Amino acid sequence: MDSTDDAIRSPQHGDDVAMKNTERAEDIDKVAAAAAPDGTEPEGPDAGSGSGRDKKDKPETVGKGPAKLPTTPDPAVAKALQKLLDGKYAEDRERVRATLDDEFFRPQVGLPLDEARDAILARLERLRDTGMPKGVFSAAHGGTGEIGATLTGMEMVGHADLGVMVKSGVQWGLFGGAVEALGSDRHTHLVPQIINLDLLGCFAMTERGHGSDVQNLETTATYDPETDEFIVHSPSPSAQKTYIGNAARHGRMAAVFAQLHTPGSATDANHDPAESHGVHCVLVPIRDEDGNPMPGVTIGDHGYKGGLPGVDNGTILFDNVRVPRENLLNRFGDVDERGNYSSPIESRNRRFFTMLGTLIRGRVSVGAAAGAATRSSLTIALRYATRRRQFEGVPGNEKRLIEHRSHRLRLLPRLARSYALALLQNQIIERLDEQDSLIAAGEWNVAEPTDEQQWKQREMESRAAAVKVAATRHATDTIQECREACGGAGYMAENLLTIHKDDSDVFTTFEGDNTVLIQMVGKELITAYARGLSDLDPMGMLRFGVENVGDILRRRTPLARSVQTLIDSVTDREETDIFDAGYQVQLFEDRESNLLKSLARRLSGAKKMDIEDAVAAVDSAQDHLIACGWARVDAMLLEALVEAEASLDDGSAVKDVFVQIRTLFALSTINAHSGWYQEQNVLNGLRTKAVRAAINDLVDSLGPWADVLVDAFAIPEALVSVPMLDDAGVDPR
Amino acid sequence: MDSTDDAIRSPQHGDDVAMKNTERAEDIDKVAAAAAPDGTEPEGPDAGSGSGRDKKDKPETVGKGPAKLPTTPDPAVAKALQKLLDGKYAEDRERVRATLDDEFFRPQVGLPLDEARDAILARLERLRDTGMPKGVFSAAHGGTGEIGATLTGMEMVGHADLGVMVKSGVQWGLFGGAVEALGSDRHTHLVPQIINLDLLGCFAMTERGHGSDVQNLETTATYDPETDEFIVHSPSPSAQKTYIGNAARHGRMAAVFAQLHTPGSATDANHDPAESHGVHCVLVPIRDEDGNPMPGVTIGDHGYKGGLPGVDNGTILFDNVRVPRENLLNRFGDVDERGNYSSPIESRNRRFFTMLGTLIRGRVSVGAAAGAATRSSLTIALRYATRRRQFEGVPGNEKRLIEHRSHRLRLLPRLARSYALALLQNQIIERLDEQDSLIAAGEWNVAEPTDEQQWKQREMESRAAAVKVAATRHATDTIQECREACGGAGYMAENLLTIHKDDSDVFTTFEGDNTVLIQMVGKELITAYARGLSDLDPMGMLRFGVENVGDILRRRTPLARSVQTLIDSVTDREETDIFDAGYQVQLFEDRESNLLKSLARRLSGAKKMDIEDAVAAVDSAQDHLIACGWARVDAMLLEALVEAEASLDDGSAVKDVFVQIRTLFALSTINAHSGWYQEQNVLNGLRTKAVRAAINDLVDSLGPWADVLVDAFAIPEALVSVPMLDDAGVDPR
Repeated sequence: MDSTDDAIRSPQHGDDVAMKNTERAEDIDKVAAAAAPDGTEPEGPDAGSGSGRDKKDKPETVGKGPAKLPTTPDPAVAKALQKLLDGKYAEDRERVRATLDDEFFRPQVGLPLDEARDAILARLERLRDTGMPKGVFSAAHGGTGEIGATLTGMEMVGHADLGVMVKSGVQWGLFGGAVEALGSDRHTHLVPQIINLDLLGCFAMTERGHGSDVQNLETTATYDPETDEFIVHSPSPSAQKTYIGNAARHGRMAAVFAQLHTPGSATDANHDPAESHGVHCVLVPIRDEDGNPMPGVTIGDHGYKGGLPGVDNGTILFDNVRVPRENLLNRFGDVDERGNYSSPIESRNRRFFTMLGTLIRGRVSVGAAAGAATRSSLTIALRYATRRRQFEGVPGNEKRLIEHRSHRLRLLPRLARSYALALLQNQIIERLDEQDSLIAAGEWNVAEPTDEQQWKQREMESRAAAVKVAATRHATDTIQECREACGGAGYMAENLLTIHKDDSDVFTTFEGDNTVLIQMVGKELITAYARGLSDLDPMGMLRFGVENVGDILRRRTPLARSVQTLIDSVTDREETDIFDAGYQVQLFEDRESNLLKSLARRLSGAKKMDIEDAVAAVDSAQDHLIACGWARVDAMLLEALVEAEASLDDGSAVKDVFVQIRTLFALSTINAHSGWYQEQNVLNGLRTKAVRAAINDLVDSLGPWADVLVDAFAIPEALVSVPMLDDAGVDPR
Repeated sequence: MDSTDDAIRSPQHGDDVAMKNTERAEDIDKVAAAAAPDGTEPEGPDAGSGSGRDKKDKPETVGKGPAKLPTTPDPAVAKALQKLLDGKYAEDRERVRATLDDEFFRPQVGLPLDEARDAILARLERLRDTGMPKGVFSAAHGGTGEIGATLTGMEMVGHADLGVMVKSGVQWGLFGGAVEALGSDRHTHLVPQIINLDLLGCFAMTERGHGSDVQNLETTATYDPETDEFIVHSPSPSAQKTYIGNAARHGRMAAVFAQLHTPGSATDANHDPAESHGVHCVLVPIRDEDGNPMPGVTIGDHGYKGGLPGVDNGTILFDNVRVPRENLLNRFGDVDERGNYSSPIESRNRRFFTMLGTLIRGRVSVGAAAGAATRSSLTIALRYATRRRQFEGVPGNEKRLIEHRSHRLRLLPRLARSYALALLQNQIIERLDEQDSLIAAGEWNVAEPTDEQQWKQREMESRAAAVKVAATRHATDTIQECREACGGAGYMAENLLTIHKDDSDVFTTFEGDNTVLIQMVGKELITAYARGLSDLDPMGMLRFGVENVGDILRRRTPLARSVQTLIDSVTDREETDIFDAGYQVQLFEDRESNLLKSLARRLSGAKKMDIEDAVAAVDSAQDHLIACGWARVDAMLLEALVEAEASLDDGSAVKDVFVQIRTLFALSTINAHSGWYQEQNVLNGLRTKAVRAAINDLVDSLGPWADVLVDAFAIPEALVSVPMLDDAGVDPR
């Protein structure tokens, strides 16, 4: 009876509604009253008495939605969607699926801590045996250099057990990555041992006093020319390395980030970072062959955490630990035996960020795996929703959960966002792979990049940050929603949702805290066009003028042609149909550019201020910066969907479905910001209500397709076949 | 430099801003451009280029905010706020604080399952020894009948360990409560054993096939006149009792909810609930003295869950288990030895809901304890925020987390909502206590209530549902935010945030799933005025006309006088100052009544439809119903704050602080619905921007008071003194 069911409507009906819109706003109450008796008032769920039509809206503004999908889904669409989502590394995905389709990879619940840790190590050994980890190392060092395929494989490990993914990331990605990317020939003999798990290691960056603020680490590595050694030392309790994976049980060596001092800089314990050579990385043995801590090394155990029980996080404290000079990973900064420092990168700041560039893979992997765990959770929750019956609709016929609209609204918009994230994630992994190929081929010198390459690197880092934030925030929110949507059953550990929730929870704050990273995305928008490299110093953005917003937007990475064509067509046609992809992109871009412009204005005075006022100014704009970052993230997600959609044949069943996924994502996101859109006079109340009504229609249309939509994720059955899905099959009648 | 810092402004400055507002909307860009150079553009954080002044707004609309609080907080305010929050049972709270201020009550991490379960039982024994559980039982049965004080005490157990609260709730609240409230003289000898923990028991209501839908339970209790026994039976796998606390390890008896059959109704296994006497409760021994399951009873163990490891949830399946006829808890329905059924309540439906009325205490306790765990979490996270330094502001001077506005925005609005919830929770516990006193005094007959009492009961149930939903949703969201706001340290189990998160997580879906309960709140608004008792049948609301919205609103429980006075003053003065409490209440009431009116219109056609269309109509209005319920909840919360505020002396320091808490809650909530307010033309974009700017100002003003605001919760130090607070004290410089 609710006419919003028709918002995905036939052209004829659409015209009917459009005609009604010519009525005057002042007639709202009369119209509403007239509409009420037969219940056909075209209101969204949250609409109140003031709803109605607005004379300012032209008839064409309501637009024609896509046709409602057939209520009997076409299973072949799952395969076609899977092809889209699998992307470039589809064959590699298939291989990994075969490996992971094994109960062995299901998270294990309730093991004592040390058993849980050893169990995870056993799973790393299985992955090692498939050869997968070799991909992140170059052929010259015993690897295969297939970065894209390997990162995709590690993403898929996230379908199974984030503990395995995290420990793999620590061992091969971070520890191994540091040795390969920051070391030189004298260290490459370690790489095969790292691949083989003969040498388990730690990535010792974070300190108790400094989490995300790496530039201010306290640990020191001071060169002693008399013995040709570095003295690695924790000068205070807050210098303790914390949350270090592999530290508590398995690690034998640590790649330690420390302020590098040489006799020419500063040698006393009361070091001043400003007088050191900045943060460098030194290899320090932390355990002997018997597993005992090395002299001067104090190892602590974090014990139980919110999740990831099988990852042995611990603390490390150094009391004047001596290591040979050669243990310095010296690719970007070296010390000779007389204590002279040299580096191929002159700028201390650029040197720091070049070294930190090695973190990008970890960040991309974290986002990817969080996305995979989310898709596992959505698969479980939506399969439960299509099986579980609860509460009578028509007497004697209990409804499936998915038949309750509130349930569809809980899960399907999140599913649409998961599609967008998966596609964006594929893009960034492909780009990372391309960049790596250029580096391997000698066409990109990391120490001496061209301006263009610096720009690309910067943009890549911002994208990686954006995707990490988007994927991990989405994971935390969505897995929680999946858990709740399955009621009591969702709370049972055997059904895996609480495991995925607990394990993924830390993803929002590690590998870069989301609150910090999203500000980095916002800052990149403001400062990237003029600065060679970003930093996290809030003064950096102030010192640089921010008047020239147009320039910033124009100098961003060009949009994919498919997306650009759509936007151009909007300009040409003045199309303002909320179902039109081009108009949707325009609305997302509006949000991004308007926020950016106002932020630029807001900060433009700060550069003339004294520093205390300027700091206060930046602090008071912090939420604005965060809003900018999120607007950018959302725009990237929509663009990824639009780009993928362009590859589908018009009129195909898969395109019909995908268009609704894209529209659901776009309109849900617009709805979440409906206050802002109205404030800015970009959309009026009639439009925002139409958006909400369309969301209802879309979830109604997509509801019967829920199983198909999650089948498209093609997650190995062993990882999502949980007991409650069997139980739910028991029809109580 | 940001002029929004002045939105909590002096009258003079307020007038300045107001004057600017007379400028025309068309001049936006000019004004913005002019404002930009000195950065004083009065924009909220999320404002874009289209911002500016609107000629439609009269000067007085911006309003005068409360003065910014002193940056040096007054510790005495904590005590004054505590008095307000402690409420009627302040002395009882102090006693419980003394009991709980003991590391013994801190959650224990990582124990094997059975040890964790026994540890929780040991804590119940400690509570028993204080005499606290006696309060929920009447003096006649060995209790003290101090319901309010006891529920308050159980709330405070939530500060410590929700596992202890849940197991206490199962044992004394649900199992003990069922025996006392549903049983008769022949059962009261059990009460002292239940209080003493000599008899541990289960509340066996939920079934695998039916969680929230109790009326359709499948388990049968069939009377056999030949042996004078009931045969308790699970006719199908979906009839299995699930998630039953005390079942897996400690319980010896279960209060089993089952469809009651007598020879006169139906005796075959393929029972039809419509032919039974409906759901009744029977006591069934499930374990013998040695702890072995009784014959015919199959007990399963749910093992690990998302949290609450110390609560031994399990499943129970009955295979024609025979118990004496006297085991029927027969207060509201009895069977004589010849098998004749009788009940003091004629209406089958009312009988059912009278029996379920016993659940209300559990529901209130769940909300209360979730609120307590949230306050513990906020205490931990805000103390961390005032101690932990991260990232430089002025070089060489790292800022405390609380000095970052984004951090204040994450936590302080949630803190304000916690204040509102605590006050509302106090109200409902006081009312429950009053009602209980009337019942104990014989002035309220539960089986034969007056119309007025029926109405009050109904209203109480709706309030209990509303508060439970509000408190548990808030707990899940806020404890998660607290965890993330503490970064890696927040993920360490020893810092308790992940424990509180995991343990409270199930609170949103047990004791009534929130999605079901919030719809009940919405339905109550629509149907309560005409129906004696609510049910969860969607047809119930359809059969009843819903034209008469004004009546519904008028017949709701009258507002507290302080709140009513405020609203009246708005009407008198046409006050539309966003800082005015009366105007804020008006805005909340507008949201509630507008949503209700449009929902009523939307559903008014359904009663003429055939059933399938009507069900579809209700389904399509489900999100509207949910929005109505939330509007009611938010209005109740604001009213609780306003009522408390009225008790404070004008000009006192505590009132100055409290006014800002109330305003922060009100404006944050309005901001969350800014899209709706604009759609409804209740607020325009200028107002919603002013709201956002005011939120920024309020968190800036309250930021230095963070420690005071959580000290007011007066949580025993042993429960919130976590390791990271010591660590954070280590200043890295």
